Amino acid sequence: MPAPSSYPVPLEALLKELRRLPGVGPKSAERMALWLLGPDTERAFSLSSAITSAAEAIRHCAKCGFFSCGEICPICADPLREGREICVVEQATDILPMEKTGIFNGRYHSLGGKLSPLDHVGPDQLRIGALLERIDTEKPSEIILALSADVEGGATTSYLAEILKGKNVPVSRVAHGLPAGGGLEHADALTLQNALSGRSKV
Amino acid sequence: MPAPSSYPVPLEALLKELRRLPGVGPKSAERMALWLLGPDTERAFSLSSAITSAAEAIRHCAKCGFFSCGEICPICADPLREGREICVVEQATDILPMEKTGIFNGRYHSLGGKLSPLDHVGPDQLRIGALLERIDTEKPSEIILALSADVEGGATTSYLAEILKGKNVPVSRVAHGLPAGGGLEHADALTLQNALSGRSKV
Repeated sequence: MPAPSSYPVPLEALLKELRRLPGVGPKSAERMALWLLGPDTERAFSLSSAITSAAEAIRHCAKCGFFSCGEICPICADPLREGREICVVEQATDILPMEKTGIFNGRYHSLGGKLSPLDHVGPDQLRIGALLERIDTEKPSEIILALSADVEGGATTSYLAEILKGKNVPVSRVAHGLPAGGGLEHADALTLQNALSGRSKV
Repeated sequence: MPAPSSYPVPLEALLKELRRLPGVGPKSAERMALWLLGPDTERAFSLSSAITSAAEAIRHCAKCGFFSCGEICPICADPLREGREICVVEQATDILPMEKTGIFNGRYHSLGGKLSPLDHVGPDQLRIGALLERIDTEKPSEIILALSADVEGGATTSYLAEILKGKNVPVSRVAHGLPAGGGLEHADALTLQNALSGRSKV
């Protein structure tokens, strides 16, 4: 019998699937598989059924793109939030951190990404048309662009600002500067530049 | 309707399960969940079924502890490897990298961990009794200890060397020193110390 140059077939299949997850390389996939195939099968079956249940139950809100069990998420279904600000974010996972601050009472709109020509993400890949429609029907008081403070986030912000000029709605973007608790010695040059150019009178 | 302070229940359940995986924190779990709940459900279902299939099909070889679809893995079932060296490793995932080098033709023995009092891993948690039995029945030509070059690996190596003194079998441990391709400027002090103290005549 020849020396095995690979794991048994079902394990190789599991490793291949785990490696597809974002941020998981060959080594992490092996650690996860070793853990999943640990002392009993409880770990494997409870992860497997959690994945299946979530995939069956969770969809993206037809309006804002947030995770939802129904057609419309609780945030978009809340009549108290009608006609207020719409905060534009990159991804569905950006909504909950914002919501948890408790200081924003408007609605959200997840673009599903940011402009990134290298990754073949252009305006057509983002939910920009849906945003324009929502502006017409929901008549928000303001559009707040809350995209990443990086090159692609900046390009997306500029692009949206240009597009939204045609709509009769105020458009703003979130402040870029020193993060809370961050001293000057830990800030990179670009953060300092943003903090300086965005300074406000005291 | 109050603002949601959490994701929908099935998604929270998925995040909780993903966070149990080794090396996965809250942020990575969110990235994975976002990816799994992506454009279609294919990703989620193929990962879920790969996990279930592997958990159902894969067991640990009764002799060495390597992953196997049968009671005994192909390495332990190979009669050509009988009576040769037994290479003692920490985990089942350490066997394949060793096997892929192609220079070792003996059998393996996975301990299932290393001595680590802080993690409540003592000799009784490791497959040491099974190793002693295999030495009696398989009569290997040598025991090669191939554990990590860290504190716990060193303690485990010393412990096993002491235990194995009672058996009439040569015991060795793998060399510690400069990794291949590694220059002196990238080596830490302990690696250099090991490389120096383990020097050989040329």
